[in-house]
Amino acid sequence: MNHTTVPAYAAPAAKAPLERITVQRREPGEHDVLIEIKYAGICHSDIHTVRGEWGDDGHFPLVPGHEIAGVVTAVGSGVTRHRVGDRVGVGCFVDSCRECDNCKAGLQQYCTGELGMVGTYGRPGRDGEVTQGGYSTHVVVDENYALRIPVSLPLDEAAPLLCAGITLYSPLARWQAGPGRKVAIVGMGGLGHMGVKIAHAMGAEVTVLSQSLRKQEDGLRLGADHFHATSDPATFEKLAGSFDLIVNTVSADIDLDAYLGLLATDGTLVQVGAPERPLAVSPFALIAQRKSLAGSMIGGIPETQEMLDFCGEHGIGADIEVIRAEQVNEAYERVLAGDVRYRFVIDAATI
Amino acid sequence: MNHTTVPAYAAPAAKAPLERITVQRREPGEHDVLIEIKYAGICHSDIHTVRGEWGDDGHFPLVPGHEIAGVVTAVGSGVTRHRVGDRVGVGCFVDSCRECDNCKAGLQQYCTGELGMVGTYGRPGRDGEVTQGGYSTHVVVDENYALRIPVSLPLDEAAPLLCAGITLYSPLARWQAGPGRKVAIVGMGGLGHMGVKIAHAMGAEVTVLSQSLRKQEDGLRLGADHFHATSDPATFEKLAGSFDLIVNTVSADIDLDAYLGLLATDGTLVQVGAPERPLAVSPFALIAQRKSLAGSMIGGIPETQEMLDFCGEHGIGADIEVIRAEQVNEAYERVLAGDVRYRFVIDAATI
Repeated sequence: MNHTTVPAYAAPAAKAPLERITVQRREPGEHDVLIEIKYAGICHSDIHTVRGEWGDDGHFPLVPGHEIAGVVTAVGSGVTRHRVGDRVGVGCFVDSCRECDNCKAGLQQYCTGELGMVGTYGRPGRDGEVTQGGYSTHVVVDENYALRIPVSLPLDEAAPLLCAGITLYSPLARWQAGPGRKVAIVGMGGLGHMGVKIAHAMGAEVTVLSQSLRKQEDGLRLGADHFHATSDPATFEKLAGSFDLIVNTVSADIDLDAYLGLLATDGTLVQVGAPERPLAVSPFALIAQRKSLAGSMIGGIPETQEMLDFCGEHGIGADIEVIRAEQVNEAYERVLAGDVRYRFVIDAATI
Repeated sequence: MNHTTVPAYAAPAAKAPLERITVQRREPGEHDVLIEIKYAGICHSDIHTVRGEWGDDGHFPLVPGHEIAGVVTAVGSGVTRHRVGDRVGVGCFVDSCRECDNCKAGLQQYCTGELGMVGTYGRPGRDGEVTQGGYSTHVVVDENYALRIPVSLPLDEAAPLLCAGITLYSPLARWQAGPGRKVAIVGMGGLGHMGVKIAHAMGAEVTVLSQSLRKQEDGLRLGADHFHATSDPATFEKLAGSFDLIVNTVSADIDLDAYLGLLATDGTLVQVGAPERPLAVSPFALIAQRKSLAGSMIGGIPETQEMLDFCGEHGIGADIEVIRAEQVNEAYERVLAGDVRYRFVIDAATI
């Protein structure tokens, strides 16, 4: 297979700062598209991965980035879904087995085939080559794993939709956020701020549960109807039994029983962040009012397209801070310090 | 209010053996029915309660029993739902606020009103008197909290349906056990054996997950399609990703992550027993395949009637061992030792 060399930002080893390197991209095959990357969002899981915190064997040097927005610049001879010039996005995976029940149902993120979901970086693809992510100028992916970005969305604001957006959209859609439903979003960071915008656009009554009231003004501006500080114990008394759905975007340990207490009968708390330690739940917190604790992970290709179209219709992009590529290490520190409103996006022209 | 004195078996104090005493029953009011109790099932929670293990303040002497089957012998002037001679049952509660959203929706077991669900024993009712349960010859309850027992069901086999039956029926119905769905029942005791019968009658493919294969023959006879021992680690490999629904009837600590691993994508594990210690769940066990951990507690009045009618149609009663009242303490020991197939029922004529 022929390859082209392109510049990228990569971690040379676990915990090492990112630096500019070059990586190989395959020549577009029959069903591939070559994408000129315009913007790549910085997701907290990029940081976990390059720091070796998720127990990966680590295919270093590793190029992170799975919130990719760009433009198609070449297509393979068999490509029908995209054309040169199309604005497209790539999210957390670039392939899957395509044969298991989940893949056939469009739930590629839950692929149970031997190949499994092929992550956008650090994972061996079906050709055996380890994938490299979006902090780069170009990427080549199978046409079925590239999404159309509506023209109404600027590419920089659209990039974070590919992970943060779908991570919130999928559970909000599945657990029926909409008119007449009370939805709480726990945490107002990169994930949470998308949850507020999307749940509001879906018509739900939206409450933000944030550690302090520091982001209250932002929360209300983004579409929240209510905003409460979880550092105030009165919040948990006042809102007991209130919500049909709580989406927890916080990866730190939280007192789950306290949050389950905020659910109404038949309510569901959906975990989308992944704390390192096991969750502890009192059985009665679930049994006494038929509550559920669930998990949800990004979304499949059809649902990601649905989310992008929904965001296009409602004019929903991420609130972003565009940075130059050489600022990436500094940006990582700021993400870890919670100092970003609400997503860093790398301008790929600076790579 | 006038009262009548009736015999009963009661715990005189926490942890003390049960003994024969007399208790007061109110004269039937306008909307009450007087029931001559024929049989009362022994539920594990009776034992927890009389041993003071559930942190109750304990209204001793306490008459347990919330699996009551009998015949109406008198009705108040305003009663329209039952007539003298009717075969009726009383389950885990005898009243609720009737005004909250849950009560109005027929989910009295999740009553959020000030009165709350009034348990059949050991709970202050709306008249302030503490309720006394079914190990007795008679009980007086509001007509709305007594259920019709279909004529096709013998009263002794019907009694355990009022708690064990509805505890399994409700989650099986809510999470759609039925044709094309694979359901596992964890534990084959008083609760579990009802789950096997009901899930089978609903048309699901039923698997029993029991500690050993000791009860395999019974399980298959009751309607299970498969039976596996959880003491064999191979069970968890072989059945990984298999089930749409798992109902866990075991109150002892189990390795929840291992059981969650048996669920297919979008599967739900419902906890109906209540272990004393918090449950521990790895976030990835939920997130990786959008799984849910839920709780469910008995059922409301309309659903309990639906369950009884369903059991009547399908000829489903509990597998029981009828005992004389003076055997109750011995029966408790045998329940704790797991030595009952599958429910003890007290013949109230021996009280």
